[in-house]
Parts: sequence; structure tokens; C-alpha cells
Amino acid sequence: MASVATQDELGTRVEDALRQRFAERSSAAENYGEPFAALWRAAAAHAMGGKMIRPRLLLDAHRALSASGSEVDQTAAIEIAAEVELLHYAFLLHDDVIDGDLVRRRQPNLIGTLAASTGRAREDSELHWARSSAILMGDLLLATSVLGFARARVSTAARLRLLDLIEHTIVETVAGEHIDVGLGDGIIEPDLRTILEMSTYKTATYSFSLPLRAAAILAGASTELEDDLAAIGRHLGLAFQLQDDLLCVFGDHEVHGKDAFSDLREGKETAIIAYARMTTAWPHIRQHFGSTMLDEHEAVRIREHLRDCGAERFVQGLVADELAAASAVAVDIESAHIVSGDVIDSIRTLIARIEGRAS
Amino acid sequence: MASVATQDELGTRVEDALRQRFAERSSAAENYGEPFAALWRAAAAHAMGGKMIRPRLLLDAHRALSASGSEVDQTAAIEIAAEVELLHYAFLLHDDVIDGDLVRRRQPNLIGTLAASTGRAREDSELHWARSSAILMGDLLLATSVLGFARARVSTAARLRLLDLIEHTIVETVAGEHIDVGLGDGIIEPDLRTILEMSTYKTATYSFSLPLRAAAILAGASTELEDDLAAIGRHLGLAFQLQDDLLCVFGDHEVHGKDAFSDLREGKETAIIAYARMTTAWPHIRQHFGSTMLDEHEAVRIREHLRDCGAERFVQGLVADELAAASAVAVDIESAHIVSGDVIDSIRTLIARIEGRAS
Repeated sequence: MASVATQDELGTRVEDALRQRFAERSSAAENYGEPFAALWRAAAAHAMGGKMIRPRLLLDAHRALSASGSEVDQTAAIEIAAEVELLHYAFLLHDDVIDGDLVRRRQPNLIGTLAASTGRAREDSELHWARSSAILMGDLLLATSVLGFARARVSTAARLRLLDLIEHTIVETVAGEHIDVGLGDGIIEPDLRTILEMSTYKTATYSFSLPLRAAAILAGASTELEDDLAAIGRHLGLAFQLQDDLLCVFGDHEVHGKDAFSDLREGKETAIIAYARMTTAWPHIRQHFGSTMLDEHEAVRIREHLRDCGAERFVQGLVADELAAASAVAVDIESAHIVSGDVIDSIRTLIARIEGRAS
Repeated sequence: MASVATQDELGTRVEDALRQRFAERSSAAENYGEPFAALWRAAAAHAMGGKMIRPRLLLDAHRALSASGSEVDQTAAIEIAAEVELLHYAFLLHDDVIDGDLVRRRQPNLIGTLAASTGRAREDSELHWARSSAILMGDLLLATSVLGFARARVSTAARLRLLDLIEHTIVETVAGEHIDVGLGDGIIEPDLRTILEMSTYKTATYSFSLPLRAAAILAGASTELEDDLAAIGRHLGLAFQLQDDLLCVFGDHEVHGKDAFSDLREGKETAIIAYARMTTAWPHIRQHFGSTMLDEHEAVRIREHLRDCGAERFVQGLVADELAAASAVAVDIESAHIVSGDVIDSIRTLIARIEGRAS
């Protein structure tokens, strides 16, 4: 269909929509003085740096699910895709505040940038200013995202479904983050089941289920198909997070871009660690796990223990299970003949892409 | 009209609406484990303890503005009044995180309560857990409030006006809080104009203009009247905040319930201080201003300096000016004959109440 934009064009239109939104906000922020306008500009620079995984997932699924592909439908999908990316960035900001992080993917994050930019206050004031600004910007983007869902130019029925979706997504993501904080602070026990639930809530729900479900609603799909896509999103999202955990410890740091062994240094409670805790290797790992002074040599030894005790293999097995579970739901959808072959192909491509990822 | 509930009944209905909302959330939160459910229960206990100034203002104004007073209109007003109170509590939570406060009105706030309740982690972990939980609960309540505005069962035109209102309110309140943080951290200069703008943005917009404007929209009032009520809200809200500043330093602490001299101890940049900075009394005040060790004797001496240098009288003058400005807008509305006498009476009662407050 000549009227349907290609996926690359759609991706560019999401970036354009985000850029425009930030430009409008930065400009309106000038009414409240230069520091507030500067905060908006800094947030825009950081928010635009992502890989846009979630908007792209939404637009891919929406194209596969849409019968017509009319211009109006695409516009609503692009708008909602931009809101999903804003929500992602709002979560990242509050996550960084909670974790005390100043760096993301080897670059200063918004907090690190703001703390370095004042140049005239004492160091503790700079950090307080930067962290408080990140809390406030997270609030603004969270509200903006929800308002974007509320203003979607779709039917009343679709709008109410979108509102239920964004509400469920925020509650579940925050619940996952809350469990994650409890694990880190020693308030919640780090058993395997809790960690898998936490990862599903904190990552899979908003990064995978949300874009797929939003696409379904915008394409006018049934609630049954939306539920099936939510399940596929949960399985893929959990697989994705478990792969992230594997990559951080066992992957090629030059390729995936995260700090080498940062999870081990931070004492992050992952499925790998939860498995290792149940083995005789744990006393050897525990010694250095969570030490901010962990050097390369000790980290490599922990990695060997994690491999030898079977933790790597176990989590690889979990990834395979989750991908298989996603495929099984796709087969169910296919055999029920409720969607076109395009949708099944699109899901299979997505599963294959996650299966083969190295970064 | 026999069908119209009294204001006390309406106040009770707002409390009931809030109680029901928290009960539903606490119950749904159990799906995510006991700590998350406990967080909701604790938030409910703290959020229900307020004086409900904002919902009552909304309902008073709505009654005065409503021609019909039909049951449907009242239900929407009660729902939105509950959302306004949730927004207030969301702002308080993030405010307490940013200020590092564990106490509000001499009682442990949510952070203080949560930090004391774990009973098994190290002290710094407890505080991290409590503060992170408050960030996350603030996010949940902020999103809930916006969603409540989005789901209001009113006409499409009224719904879009409500969405614009809540967006403007959140941006302006956050901008005010951002300026307040910048003042505290020494990033923004504490001149009088900046402090008056900050107080208007941070307090007046959501505490006074929001309830009055929401009432206008729900009662089907014109955008012109809504704008006039917004202006009245700004004047009254600034007067209210300036009175708060005066009460904290010069008021009877047994009556208003705030910690005696807490603003002086925290080094809070208020209009009183901004005026004093411009006088020859400042060197005497600066010595002890912002000292956490400030004792009763030193505080009383600062108070005398603030009185002698004319800061008290100056800020009392500002309060009178703002109340007069609110009255002037009310006179304009009255002479334009665009509302009933009920509305003017209601505004005059409100102005008189703020004029005479001691707590």
C-alpha cells in the first residue's frame, strides 16, 4: 500500500513527535525562569538518546494488526508510541534517583549532567539539586505520558481501554520497582520466584506488554487478542531481562555497552545469583559479591563460579522456556485463525530477534 | 433545594470516595506481595489525615456556581475533589523526599513511619527503603489523580478543559517546587520577586486556583469566569502562603501546630527573609539563620530583629494587598453580572476566612 509509511519513516515520525513535544515544553518552561527551561532542555537531550525499542515494537505490531493502515490510525499510533517512550524515560529517571546512579551506559545521566553543570554550589547541594530535579522531571514526564493517553484521538471505547492499560502498567511497574528496592535494601528475601516476578513486573510489563497491547487497542483488536499479546509481552520481556542479566556477567562488554560486571559490583539480586545462592558455590561468591571495590580478577573468578555451579546454564534455560512459551501463545493465536499471517510473522521475527541478541 | 446535599454531607462523601479508592488499591496491591500492600495501607492512613481544604473549596465553589445542583453534577464534583486531594498528597510525598523530612505537623510522615516499621535492616537501608517507597507512592498517586481527571463522566468539552487544567497545574506546581529547591541549594538567588513567584506557583496554583477552576468547569461556567476564579485563587493562595510564613515565625505555635521557628532553623527563603536581607538588620539575623542548632533564645532574638526591621509589617502588607486584589476581581465579576449573588458571597466568605486565620 503506497499510503502506508515504511517502518523507518514511522520511527522517524516518533522521534519527530518527541522532539516537538520537548521543544514545546522547553519553550513553555521559559515562563518559569531559566533553570526550569534548562532542566527541560537537558531532559530532552537525554530522552532522545535511546534506542526507541518500545515505540518501534508498538509500531511494528500496529502495522501487522491493522487491516486498513489509514493515515489517521497511524497518527494515533505514533502519538501513543511517543508517550510510551516518555513513560520509559520517566521510569528511568526515578530509577536513577533511587539507585543513586550518575551514569547510564558509560555516559553521565541527567543527574550526573545537572550536578556537573551548576559550577558554583557545594558538592552536596549540587547533588541534591540534580536529584531533586530528576524527581520533578520524572513527575512531569509521567503526567505528560498519562495525559497523552487521555487525549488520544480514538473512539471512546478505545480511549477507556488505553486508560485502563496505562493505569495497570504504571501500578505493575512501580510494584516491580518497589520489590527491587526491597531486595536491594534487605527488606524482601531474594528467592528465585520473587526475582522472576520482580523482573516481569518491572521490565516486561511496560517494555513489551504495553506496546503490544496499545497496538492491539489502536488496531481495534479484541480484548482476547490483547490478552494473548500481553502474555507474549510478559514472556518476551522476562526473557529479555534475563538475557540482560546474563550479558552483564557473561557477555562481551564491548558489544553490550554496560559496565563490565556492574551487577556483581552493585550486588544486584538477579536470577543468576538466586540460583547460585542455592548451590555449594555460594560461600565463594558471597565473599566479594556486592563489593564496590571488586576488581577485574575477582569478578572473573565469581563469573567462573557462576558458570561452574550451573547458574548460567539454568538462566539460559529460563530464557529458552520463556521464548518457547511466547511461541506457544503465537501458535494458539494462529490456530484460532483470529489474526492475519502478518501478525504471526511479526511475533516470530520478534522472538527470533530476542533469541539471537548479544547487546 | 431538598435534593442538594449539605456541605458537610459532601465533605463526608469526598472522604468516603478517598477511603474507597485506597481500599480498592490496597486490595489490588496484595497481588504484588505484602510490602506493596502495606505501602498502600500506610499511604491511606496518612492521606486521610488532612483537613481537606482543597476538596471543600472545590465543593463550596461548585455549589455556588451550579444552577441546578442535580445529583449527577455533584457526583462528578465529589470525584474530582477526591482527585485534587490525591494530587495534594502526591506533591507532599515528593516534597518530603526532596526536603529529607521525616515529620509533618509533629507526627511521623509516611517516610518516618515506613523507616520505623521494618525493624530488621540497617538504618541507612531503612531510610533508603522508606524514601524510595515515598517516591514510588507519589508516582502512583500522581498518575491516579490524572487518570481520575481523564475518566471524569462529563461532556467531552468539559473533559478536555479538565485535562488542560490538571496539566497546567502540575507543570506550574513542579516549576514552583523546582525554584524552591534551587533557592534552598543556593542555585537561584533569593530575591523577593522570585520568592513570591515561587510561592504562587508551588502553593496557590494547585491549592486555590485548581479547586476553583475545576468547580467552574464542572458547573459549566465560561472560560472567562474560570480565568477570573484562577486569578482569585492565585491572590488568595499567595496570601495564604505568606500568612503561613508569618505564623511560623510570629504566630502562636500551640494554635497553628507547626514546629516553632522551623522555617528559621531550616533557613527557608521566605518573603520575610527576602525583605530582611535588604535591611541593616540582616547581619544580625544571618548569624543564626539556617542553623539546625538554633535554640529558643536565639530564635526569639531573630524574631525581634525581623519585627524591628519591618519585615513582619511588610509581609502583612503583602497579605492585605493580595486579599484586596482578590476582592477587586470579585467586584469585577459582580459588576459584570455574570454570576449569581451566591458566588460573590461565597468568594467574600472565603476571603474573610483567610483574612482572619490564626492556624
